[in-house]
Amino acid sequence: MYKPKDSSKSPRFCGMRTFMRLESVKTTDNVDFVIVGVPFDTAASNRTGQRYAPQHIRDFSVLLRPYNPEQEINIFEYCSGVDYGDIDVIPGNIHKTYQNIADELDKILQKSLTPIMMGGDHSITLGHLRAFAKKYGPVALVHFDSHGDTWDNYYGEKYMHGTPFRRAVEEGLLDVDHSIQIGMRGPLYGPEDIQEQRDLGFKVITMKEVRKLGYENVMKQIHERAGDKPVFVSYDIDFLDPAYAPGTGTPEVGGPTSYEGLEYVRGLDGLNLVGFDLVEVLPSYDSGDITAAAASSIIYEMMTLIALKKRRNQENTIRANEKFAKQ
Amino acid sequence: MYKPKDSSKSPRFCGMRTFMRLESVKTTDNVDFVIVGVPFDTAASNRTGQRYAPQHIRDFSVLLRPYNPEQEINIFEYCSGVDYGDIDVIPGNIHKTYQNIADELDKILQKSLTPIMMGGDHSITLGHLRAFAKKYGPVALVHFDSHGDTWDNYYGEKYMHGTPFRRAVEEGLLDVDHSIQIGMRGPLYGPEDIQEQRDLGFKVITMKEVRKLGYENVMKQIHERAGDKPVFVSYDIDFLDPAYAPGTGTPEVGGPTSYEGLEYVRGLDGLNLVGFDLVEVLPSYDSGDITAAAASSIIYEMMTLIALKKRRNQENTIRANEKFAKQ
Amino acid sequence: MYKPKDSSKSPRFCGMRTFMRLESVKTTDNVDFVIVGVPFDTAASNRTGQRYAPQHIRDFSVLLRPYNPEQEINIFEYCSGVDYGDIDVIPGNIHKTYQNIADELDKILQKSLTPIMMGGDHSITLGHLRAFAKKYGPVALVHFDSHGDTWDNYYGEKYMHGTPFRRAVEEGLLDVDHSIQIGMRGPLYGPEDIQEQRDLGFKVITMKEVRKLGYENVMKQIHERAGDKPVFVSYDIDFLDPAYAPGTGTPEVGGPTSYEGLEYVRGLDGLNLVGFDLVEVLPSYDSGDITAAAASSIIYEMMTLIALKKRRNQENTIRANEKFAKQ
Amino acid sequence: MYKPKDSSKSPRFCGMRTFMRLESVKTTDNVDFVIVGVPFDTAASNRTGQRYAPQHIRDFSVLLRPYNPEQEINIFEYCSGVDYGDIDVIPGNIHKTYQNIADELDKILQKSLTPIMMGGDHSITLGHLRAFAKKYGPVALVHFDSHGDTWDNYYGEKYMHGTPFRRAVEEGLLDVDHSIQIGMRGPLYGPEDIQEQRDLGFKVITMKEVRKLGYENVMKQIHERAGDKPVFVSYDIDFLDPAYAPGTGTPEVGGPTSYEGLEYVRGLDGLNLVGFDLVEVLPSYDSGDITAAAASSIIYEMMTLIALKKRRNQENTIRANEKFAKQ
Amino acid sequence: MYKPKDSSKSPRFCGMRTFMRLESVKTTDNVDFVIVGVPFDTAASNRTGQRYAPQHIRDFSVLLRPYNPEQEINIFEYCSGVDYGDIDVIPGNIHKTYQNIADELDKILQKSLTPIMMGGDHSITLGHLRAFAKKYGPVALVHFDSHGDTWDNYYGEKYMHGTPFRRAVEEGLLDVDHSIQIGMRGPLYGPEDIQEQRDLGFKVITMKEVRKLGYENVMKQIHERAGDKPVFVSYDIDFLDPAYAPGTGTPEVGGPTSYEGLEYVRGLDGLNLVGFDLVEVLPSYDSGDITAAAASSIIYEMMTLIALKKRRNQENTIRANEKFAKQ
Amino acid sequence: MYKPKDSSKSPRFCGMRTFMRLESVKTTDNVDFVIVGVPFDTAASNRTGQRYAPQHIRDFSVLLRPYNPEQEINIFEYCSGVDYGDIDVIPGNIHKTYQNIADELDKILQKSLTPIMMGGDHSITLGHLRAFAKKYGPVALVHFDSHGDTWDNYYGEKYMHGTPFRRAVEEGLLDVDHSIQIGMRGPLYGPEDIQEQRDLGFKVITMKEVRKLGYENVMKQIHERAGDKPVFVSYDIDFLDPAYAPGTGTPEVGGPTSYEGLEYVRGLDGLNLVGFDLVEVLPSYDSGDITAAAASSIIYEMMTLIALKKRRNQENTIRANEKFAKQ
Repeated sequence: MYKPKDSSKSPRFCGMRTFMRLESVKTTDNVDFVIVGVPFDTAASNRTGQRYAPQHIRDFSVLLRPYNPEQEINIFEYCSGVDYGDIDVIPGNIHKTYQNIADELDKILQKSLTPIMMGGDHSITLGHLRAFAKKYGPVALVHFDSHGDTWDNYYGEKYMHGTPFRRAVEEGLLDVDHSIQIGMRGPLYGPEDIQEQRDLGFKVITMKEVRKLGYENVMKQIHERAGDKPVFVSYDIDFLDPAYAPGTGTPEVGGPTSYEGLEYVRGLDGLNLVGFDLVEVLPSYDSGDITAAAASSIIYEMMTLIALKKRRNQENTIRANEKFAKQ
Repeated sequence: MYKPKDSSKSPRFCGMRTFMRLESVKTTDNVDFVIVGVPFDTAASNRTGQRYAPQHIRDFSVLLRPYNPEQEINIFEYCSGVDYGDIDVIPGNIHKTYQNIADELDKILQKSLTPIMMGGDHSITLGHLRAFAKKYGPVALVHFDSHGDTWDNYYGEKYMHGTPFRRAVEEGLLDVDHSIQIGMRGPLYGPEDIQEQRDLGFKVITMKEVRKLGYENVMKQIHERAGDKPVFVSYDIDFLDPAYAPGTGTPEVGGPTSYEGLEYVRGLDGLNLVGFDLVEVLPSYDSGDITAAAASSIIYEMMTLIALKKRRNQENTIRANEKFAKQ
Repeated sequence: MYKPKDSSKSPRFCGMRTFMRLESVKTTDNVDFVIVGVPFDTAASNRTGQRYAPQHIRDFSVLLRPYNPEQEINIFEYCSGVDYGDIDVIPGNIHKTYQNIADELDKILQKSLTPIMMGGDHSITLGHLRAFAKKYGPVALVHFDSHGDTWDNYYGEKYMHGTPFRRAVEEGLLDVDHSIQIGMRGPLYGPEDIQEQRDLGFKVITMKEVRKLGYENVMKQIHERAGDKPVFVSYDIDFLDPAYAPGTGTPEVGGPTSYEGLEYVRGLDGLNLVGFDLVEVLPSYDSGDITAAAASSIIYEMMTLIALKKRRNQENTIRANEKFAKQ
Repeated sequence: MYKPKDSSKSPRFCGMRTFMRLESVKTTDNVDFVIVGVPFDTAASNRTGQRYAPQHIRDFSVLLRPYNPEQEINIFEYCSGVDYGDIDVIPGNIHKTYQNIADELDKILQKSLTPIMMGGDHSITLGHLRAFAKKYGPVALVHFDSHGDTWDNYYGEKYMHGTPFRRAVEEGLLDVDHSIQIGMRGPLYGPEDIQEQRDLGFKVITMKEVRKLGYENVMKQIHERAGDKPVFVSYDIDFLDPAYAPGTGTPEVGGPTSYEGLEYVRGLDGLNLVGFDLVEVLPSYDSGDITAAAASSIIYEMMTLIALKKRRNQENTIRANEKFAKQ
Repeated sequence: MYKPKDSSKSPRFCGMRTFMRLESVKTTDNVDFVIVGVPFDTAASNRTGQRYAPQHIRDFSVLLRPYNPEQEINIFEYCSGVDYGDIDVIPGNIHKTYQNIADELDKILQKSLTPIMMGGDHSITLGHLRAFAKKYGPVALVHFDSHGDTWDNYYGEKYMHGTPFRRAVEEGLLDVDHSIQIGMRGPLYGPEDIQEQRDLGFKVITMKEVRKLGYENVMKQIHERAGDKPVFVSYDIDFLDPAYAPGTGTPEVGGPTSYEGLEYVRGLDGLNLVGFDLVEVLPSYDSGDITAAAASSIIYEMMTLIALKKRRNQENTIRANEKFAKQ
Repeated sequence: MYKPKDSSKSPRFCGMRTFMRLESVKTTDNVDFVIVGVPFDTAASNRTGQRYAPQHIRDFSVLLRPYNPEQEINIFEYCSGVDYGDIDVIPGNIHKTYQNIADELDKILQKSLTPIMMGGDHSITLGHLRAFAKKYGPVALVHFDSHGDTWDNYYGEKYMHGTPFRRAVEEGLLDVDHSIQIGMRGPLYGPEDIQEQRDLGFKVITMKEVRKLGYENVMKQIHERAGDKPVFVSYDIDFLDPAYAPGTGTPEVGGPTSYEGLEYVRGLDGLNLVGFDLVEVLPSYDSGDITAAAASSIIYEMMTLIALKKRRNQENTIRANEKFAKQ
């Protein structure tokens, strides 16, 4: 049973910066979830430096404590988890990096663990989806982002941080009928950009639509869309407004607050969540650690979802047992 | 026909930083609008360094793309525009600077182009208004700002960044009965400060009033006020809350978000817009480029307004022609 | 009669950085309020550097002007105030520091002045409360914060920035039945953390509850709770969302905007306010001076409350005199 | 008798930031020297923001202690001094600023005090020299700088930070035959730039020549040049290499270290020193306070020179008295 | 004839940031040299972000003036030059990037112009050398760097910023018998690292040897080594000590000052110089623009070398003509 | 046998930031040296935040490689070492912190390992010396610093970062006749400050004396002083000039370069070195990671000294064995 160091016993600024002061152990035994860094930034089309994001998020995350009062659960009452470390990416070589991601995730998914990946630019999600599709078949995607990331290519390059979801559809990794993209906003090349997301099969709720629908309706549509399919959640930090997440490569003004950004994660409870990533944090623009605060909290809410799912499963088992016992 | 470089063909971090990757050509031919820098900061009463703002905004603006999904228009389907470069200001000499602004704007306005000026401190707007009044007669002002900028003088100085609109009224440059100021907030010298704005003839909606009225009512009042007069829009970045625009000289807490700040620009569509400025960006306090993101987007929405106006004119012409043809 | 230098006469970037350009005089004569720095950071459990906060806030505060349009009062029509300077804290020695705080505050409170203290980490509030309790007996606390700061100890240490309010209850400094804590949020060690605040006697409105209740109801509950007791207001800058206050030691996402954060202070008008502190500003993380802007404005609103109280007292006296005259 | 607060008694981070923790008193009584800020930056041709330099230098200078081991003297055994505050400059109006400088310096020089001015951009030195010439007649200048600052004008402007010494010669403020400029380097408009300095009458030792001559020879030439004339020392922080002074407006690589930069000041002992300025510090580029450290130390060495001069005068008086007594 | 804008006529902070305010024209006509940006950072093994270096260097370079007093020449009396803009690199695809570099350099070298390339990470030099070898045959390399950059691969990748010179030897692009590497220092994998540089045929002067030999001897060895061969100069900014160039990806302490770093360039005069690059500037770590100052000056000294060469050629022609005329 | 991860196999930006990518294992088995963080900053008299130094140094240290070409040794051919993690300090409580340091160091020294401690403010060295004196008896101190740190107290406090060496002498922890302090400079309270260091028994070489003596003589005096006694080396990063180490709490200009600062460590080879600390790094002022670069390299040279000592011992053993074999 792995859980974080207790900061009321050992000062939180002491020791290696692992996520939330979890133990740094590369194990798939006796854990429910693993936090995995994927420090890759070769496929960024504007600013680079996302490779330093996993460590940057870890640095901030020492502030986190185990009980989530919003969801009313102590994560480590139900879950064991570790900081699995970083995948050895290959800078400049996206295909070998995809291979290394696959190798590592296969090990993790074979044990049916729930990984949370910290990017890295968004290109890595294609790597994640390949591993998840191998394990679960095509997965439902819940994707928070200011961009659809379904462009075909940049300057002829097919594997960039703006193309992973088109590639994923092409490779059959997604159960696109149960997939949804939320938050698109900002200038585009043309109206076809959003249309193409829809043509690929995604349900799309643009930020403009989010503002009209309101939180409750958006969450309802997400749940209806995903149904009971295995869901992979991909969260691009630029979903948030730049005031709440300046440290990213392609910020778009007019996004949600960090509070709203957390509420969207909290609202995913109840889905059949099998994996997560949080991408596109860029430390060199993260003045005052504003972005690190948001990113740490988002990952924390993802961890909470894993705990909630496990609690529900335990309760169901207990209820089932009780029911059986009564018979 | 001038339009921006295509960032899906040439990486956006390549080449000179012009606004939105437009061509850097000092021309008044074959263009509808021009982006003009006015890097002047001599008249700032607190922090200085606004002279670096035009380049700072350009640096960020490479992220912009031509299609505006909020307004559903591809700017460059209807407009041609260039980055006209900067006006050669004279640091320390505001009157010669006003002369240089006038000389350059006269050339631009003679061709009935729509210029968007990037400041610089707010004193430059007096220079802008002189040129516009020369071309159009007194213009209606729509002014977004946390300060009224109608003080009479600072330490005896009449031409400072807090005085341009009093000077403009005195010089008869404004059609003050159709002019409006929105967003005033923060500590003042006395209740007379706001009163004096009103005494000069402006309609004033303070931030406190904005919060009570709500967006729709504010926009309605702006449209009613300006009517069909030629409108000059002056946008001080400190209209936004410091969380959304820390990089400015006299920030005031309690302002709008950048989303709201953009909505106010979008809502100006339909007015008889003849010119724009965006002032008071201060790069040395712009941690994480938060302010540059907001400023670029505001200018982008101004460009969109120019395109919308042109589309409407084209459509009216077509309709007029059709009507005529039918007769 | 002490008031700030007039920035329309002397540029605001000239001269020593006192709060709001008030005179730097260590006096208790002819003043109604004093601004006092308490640059102590020994008791911080995460980041340090809060000792530089008083000067950082002063640096920004030169932008403030005397008339508050939100409350419609010119502070210095009713009040005289000075920047009293900093208390000579003893870094590393919290008990001697408490003694020095007590010595200085006793002098100020003997004259029934209203002090506003600028921290410093939150541990200093215990020092403040000791002095206020000595003067007024147990005081009602109105406490804005993302944390309850009622932990018992950290690593065995009893006097830390997360423990002052438990100590204050234990020492009988608080009229806990009239005390209230607002804004708690973020991960905890367990559900008992909030419960313990309540067990100590505090009324607690968590951020989650704040969002449900809405501003009006929260203010109503504060007023009901405090009644007519002498009230000490303690404001931890991390009550605000990190986008509005990145410069602090233990930021928690999902907090109020600076506008909301000011409104909570404004709403305190009418209470029997006897003292204030504003703590936990941390300059080294305050990119773009965003936090300094918020902190300066909060203190400004506190000053306003003192002026409003004095105006009300004067008016009551006048009315009482008139009434008496009529008899 | 005024001297700094003792940092072994009161922590150096407590209290208003005056230079070296000297008292903030605008007095010409009972003092030998005064530290005066001149926060003017209107005449800068490249970066602005030098107006924040006096406070920035003060912030750092709290580290200084009274005994100078390099010169083996305790400054305050021989001298009394205060932080006189800032001159109320008029941003945007150099001529009124010159007037305000003159008014204030006249008061100081009438009492034969030695002022040390902290700029501000280099244009202010013309103001200083006017006051000194009025008191002493034309003074000998010892000028450390990477630029000669004898250009005639910029874009037609005669009073800029690159022109004060040409103006000073034209106005007859300098005893140019005893004046010397040291350290010129970096790209120029032409060979005539240095020649013009010489044509104006200055002795010039370029950085290239400094490297050939070596420290001892340079100091010898300075002493020979200045002789026993009243000397004004003007020190532009960009004399130092940018690694030792990044925070300045027009940095030139290839300059002295801060150690060398201090040695040049120390070597001035023995001259008839009547006044000093230290200019062109620019806080917004002063990462890590490197420049503030250098600037504080240079001013500290200037203060030391004043003490050394006073000690010598006292010793001469004693010796003269003894001699007289013996007769 | 192209030359920079005159900053005594037009303020240097006005207008697009081209190198040294040269015209931004993509031309090979009527020019002697071209400044070319190569904003590539895919091959960096540690920090990324070098893609923003060309613009960062341009931003600072507006301070440069045409006359070099160290070399006593006005560059633009002898040379015409432009800022050619950036090569459209392909982020993530080094081989296409090499192709684009080759295409552009071929055009430039066909006209026998002298290009100065601004990187980008050091991998781009292989692209440069391919073009130069095509034009001139194998070239002599003069290489200033703290690293030899002759590793074989990183994690199996052959084209990284630490491998270009091994690849260049393998591809026969270098006249290795006339090539020399200067400045290697810092921890290595083993003694074989330096030995391998020598085994590849390079003469190597480590920093330790540089300190023993002294400047004159080092320059002598460079001249002896290169002889009259066509020389390509590759300058990695990390040759300088981190105090003089913090903004780079793999800084090594214990390097030369910027003054020394310039002297090594100046000393190259007389060699048969055909091309230059300056690489590895990393803006996000360049606090206070210290590195930009050094980089701009190094490129300026490279431009000066081109002018000196041209002057010498002109003088030779004149002398030859005179000689001929006399016959 | 523990050694660092190979950065040519696994990118250096991957994985937890341990010192030099050593394994993070809290072990005293199979190691020769341990790197230990002591993140304490309660006793700093000026700036705080040194608690973040160990992690900051680790972050940078990933650049280090195992072979030291200056000393011509591959550290891990002779040594095994780990990153032992941080000691759980108690912020605000120096005495408990000293106890925790003692407990941990006792374990390490019992196994005769050589620890290198990363501070933390300089007060921690008293804790180190207590442990070393317990193991070795009074040790010889070699102390590089711009301050002597032998003050008696600050504001009555006896255990501050400026007092450890006086306390150490009083507690009999030092073999003061073999102890030496190098580098003192900067303003003092009086000439007695240095004298008191000497009165306590230390040999002192001030920076002024260092400049006169030269490196060779200084090293000679250090060796003569220390003789063959067990030596503890305490290195305060402010020994370096602020241009080479801005990130520290009390910078003093006029210090050595980082090259010189490393040479002083290298020159210690041959002494009987038993332990090391490197203190006073302050990340929040470390712009551009300049200080982290220097600190990492200093610790690297300390590790090298351990390897050199071990090689010498091995060689002596071999030689002794050979000698014995020959007999």
